[in-house]
Amino acid sequence: MTHPHRVVIIGGGFAGLSAALGLRRTAVDVTLVDRRNFHLFQPLLYQVATGGLSPANISATLRSVLRRQQNVRVLLAEVRDFDLANRRVILTDGVLDYDTLVVATGAGHHYFGNDHWESLAPGLKTIEDATEIRRRIFMAFEAAERAERPEKVRELLTFVVVGGGPTGVELAGALAEIARDTLTHEFRSIDPADARIVLLEGTDRVLPSYPGSLPARAKKQLEQLGVMVRTGTLVSDIAADHVTIRAGEQTEQIPTRTILWAAGVKASPLSGRIASLAGIETDRAGRVALEPDLTVAGYPELFVIGDMASLACGPGMSLPGVAPVAIQQGKHVARTIRKRLQKKPTPAFRYRNYGTMATIGRHRAVAVFGPLRFSGYVAWFAWLFVHLMNLIEFRDRVLVFIEWAWNYVTWNRGARLITGKDHLLPAFTEMGRPEEAIPPGHSNHLGR
Amino acid sequence: MTHPHRVVIIGGGFAGLSAALGLRRTAVDVTLVDRRNFHLFQPLLYQVATGGLSPANISATLRSVLRRQQNVRVLLAEVRDFDLANRRVILTDGVLDYDTLVVATGAGHHYFGNDHWESLAPGLKTIEDATEIRRRIFMAFEAAERAERPEKVRELLTFVVVGGGPTGVELAGALAEIARDTLTHEFRSIDPADARIVLLEGTDRVLPSYPGSLPARAKKQLEQLGVMVRTGTLVSDIAADHVTIRAGEQTEQIPTRTILWAAGVKASPLSGRIASLAGIETDRAGRVALEPDLTVAGYPELFVIGDMASLACGPGMSLPGVAPVAIQQGKHVARTIRKRLQKKPTPAFRYRNYGTMATIGRHRAVAVFGPLRFSGYVAWFAWLFVHLMNLIEFRDRVLVFIEWAWNYVTWNRGARLITGKDHLLPAFTEMGRPEEAIPPGHSNHLGR
Repeated sequence: MTHPHRVVIIGGGFAGLSAALGLRRTAVDVTLVDRRNFHLFQPLLYQVATGGLSPANISATLRSVLRRQQNVRVLLAEVRDFDLANRRVILTDGVLDYDTLVVATGAGHHYFGNDHWESLAPGLKTIEDATEIRRRIFMAFEAAERAERPEKVRELLTFVVVGGGPTGVELAGALAEIARDTLTHEFRSIDPADARIVLLEGTDRVLPSYPGSLPARAKKQLEQLGVMVRTGTLVSDIAADHVTIRAGEQTEQIPTRTILWAAGVKASPLSGRIASLAGIETDRAGRVALEPDLTVAGYPELFVIGDMASLACGPGMSLPGVAPVAIQQGKHVARTIRKRLQKKPTPAFRYRNYGTMATIGRHRAVAVFGPLRFSGYVAWFAWLFVHLMNLIEFRDRVLVFIEWAWNYVTWNRGARLITGKDHLLPAFTEMGRPEEAIPPGHSNHLGR
Repeated sequence: MTHPHRVVIIGGGFAGLSAALGLRRTAVDVTLVDRRNFHLFQPLLYQVATGGLSPANISATLRSVLRRQQNVRVLLAEVRDFDLANRRVILTDGVLDYDTLVVATGAGHHYFGNDHWESLAPGLKTIEDATEIRRRIFMAFEAAERAERPEKVRELLTFVVVGGGPTGVELAGALAEIARDTLTHEFRSIDPADARIVLLEGTDRVLPSYPGSLPARAKKQLEQLGVMVRTGTLVSDIAADHVTIRAGEQTEQIPTRTILWAAGVKASPLSGRIASLAGIETDRAGRVALEPDLTVAGYPELFVIGDMASLACGPGMSLPGVAPVAIQQGKHVARTIRKRLQKKPTPAFRYRNYGTMATIGRHRAVAVFGPLRFSGYVAWFAWLFVHLMNLIEFRDRVLVFIEWAWNYVTWNRGARLITGKDHLLPAFTEMGRPEEAIPPGHSNHLGR
């Protein structure tokens, strides 16, 4: 008995989902494997981390996106290994045979050899990361409201964002808006506007991959919001109550309880496994070096796409790990599979760069579309429009739009819940100095 | 130096928040203490547990609700004990002096001496409870999609709700809608509509506190949705893969992986502490027996309100633990404090019952307003209207309305994320029988 061509796709992010959707009119049997039951619109994850949106606003269950596509089966499962010779994917609890394999499991945080920093300075990749960061941000203001010594208040109201790429810039801008606008009138002992937001960047400018004057314009907009931008600054150590930084020969400690990591990403561990099985290279970020058609050398039936893929796009430059690259790669894979079944020639992948943008805050953003560069109002509205149009499900577009319109009018953020196991204040203060507790006998009407 | 009258309110639920809001024009100094930073609209928590709404849709941060009320200070803290003689609240990390104390920390689950059932059959009181129940429900369908033996599929697709009060009825109705409508077309190996929803109730009818024919009409509407209603049935044991029930002399095992507990509530532990300090009684549900003005006998400055309060409302009957009672009690406390400061006489608390209602599903509900009784369409629209109007913040009204309108039109549920630490399928299957794993060599295109 013959079977239709079997395509197994690992990962339901932008790359994998776009490959699955691209195969909807092709006579293949698609199995989409993911550890999670939903696709996550990662470009807006920082909005969840800063209380502007709910997790469900930027997520769509894979099953609901693909419900009408009869040639796709969604499998909630975890991949343990590959058997490339026998064309098999080894799951933690089973095996999948394939004719074509598409691996697109994305990237995680990169602490550059300091993995113990992860619990002290969480990064932003998953829904759980986002709600944990949200908890830390709003818990810091709560603890500051109850702290007594001014230096303790200052420590709690200092927020350090490590990394001046788009995610770091977005987080720092949103933090500044929370402190200056969202929390106004909500506290009695502290003024949230006293918060210091420090953005650290190792190179000489923020958004270093942006052309021309945009990095300088982004820096100016951040500073207008009250963010202290420190470029040419590296993190040399992170502790529960401070971060140690180095700029040139100078070192300095910044006392803080909230450190957010946006300094680097590293391809999913499956990337290294594929490289070692296939005998090929990975780059510094752990991404797999690929053939021009996105396959692995020697394995024409094996595609690696999205944030795991390393593809040169110029001298010493490779394609960035952004959604448009992932989506176009997914479509390319679907097209290639279709053409192969039709026995037609298959082209190399070519990325069409329609533009890049990063948001900084209300009415503040930078954007580049081909030769055109924008900042401020125009860039911000362009950013808003593009992101709303791209949210996978119409439903989310409507809800996110209303959530944003509401936030815009009221300067409020509606999803500021402190949730999770450690939602209690003592758990937070226990992180560092228990002697900070209110001494017995302290009255609520004395002191600050 | 004199100070204004100090009111300390413990708990920011309906009762405590309503007391705080009721004091907005009174010259007192209010401290509202809560372990969480948000007020939770508990009547809609089952919508979060069943993926219809996001946690933030039914929550409002206490600080944002009270931001403009200058005489209130919100404190994120946990109460450890009371010193009633010296009028002090002992926090885990400090002390608060009061002139008037209002305790309103609500209720938790009641497992009637079987506390070890809690991890096997979670109840629904907190946001974390709701997202955990949501995880279990949707993970059961995922595991069923991957199970091979028909009896295993049947076990995974059996959902047992213990307790036929309003929460149990709402959960059972929503589960039936998920199985029959929401998940249609989403699975390839199972038909979600095969799911069995079993609602267990110890007395002889569901919604036993509802008058006249409403319990029978609720049962009929549940059965129309496909829920198996079993009254006169007690749970005698709960295990990871079955529940043992007893009806009269008959015992029976129902194989299931998802058991939800809606069988009883027990007042917060602070209730027992107050009773023992003041030398008064608690009732079976752990609630404090009160004076007619909601104070504790011998302590006119100490109010206990909301789900912790036991107050007779007829022979052998006490006021139910519902939001309208809590809100009216909070207002009563505020009014009593104001009148005392004005040296005016203070009346006893009197509950005005404007009506009760429970929803069962789309177009299905029961409601009683004084002598009027409704079921079906009219009751459902009344339920929708009353709940929307009562959501504390306007913002949430708008978003919840759109979320519901969207769900109504599309039969979808937008917040079906499986989140948390145990979001992976293996963690779920490990709960019981590891031998259920797909055997090595099993192909994705063989078998079911």
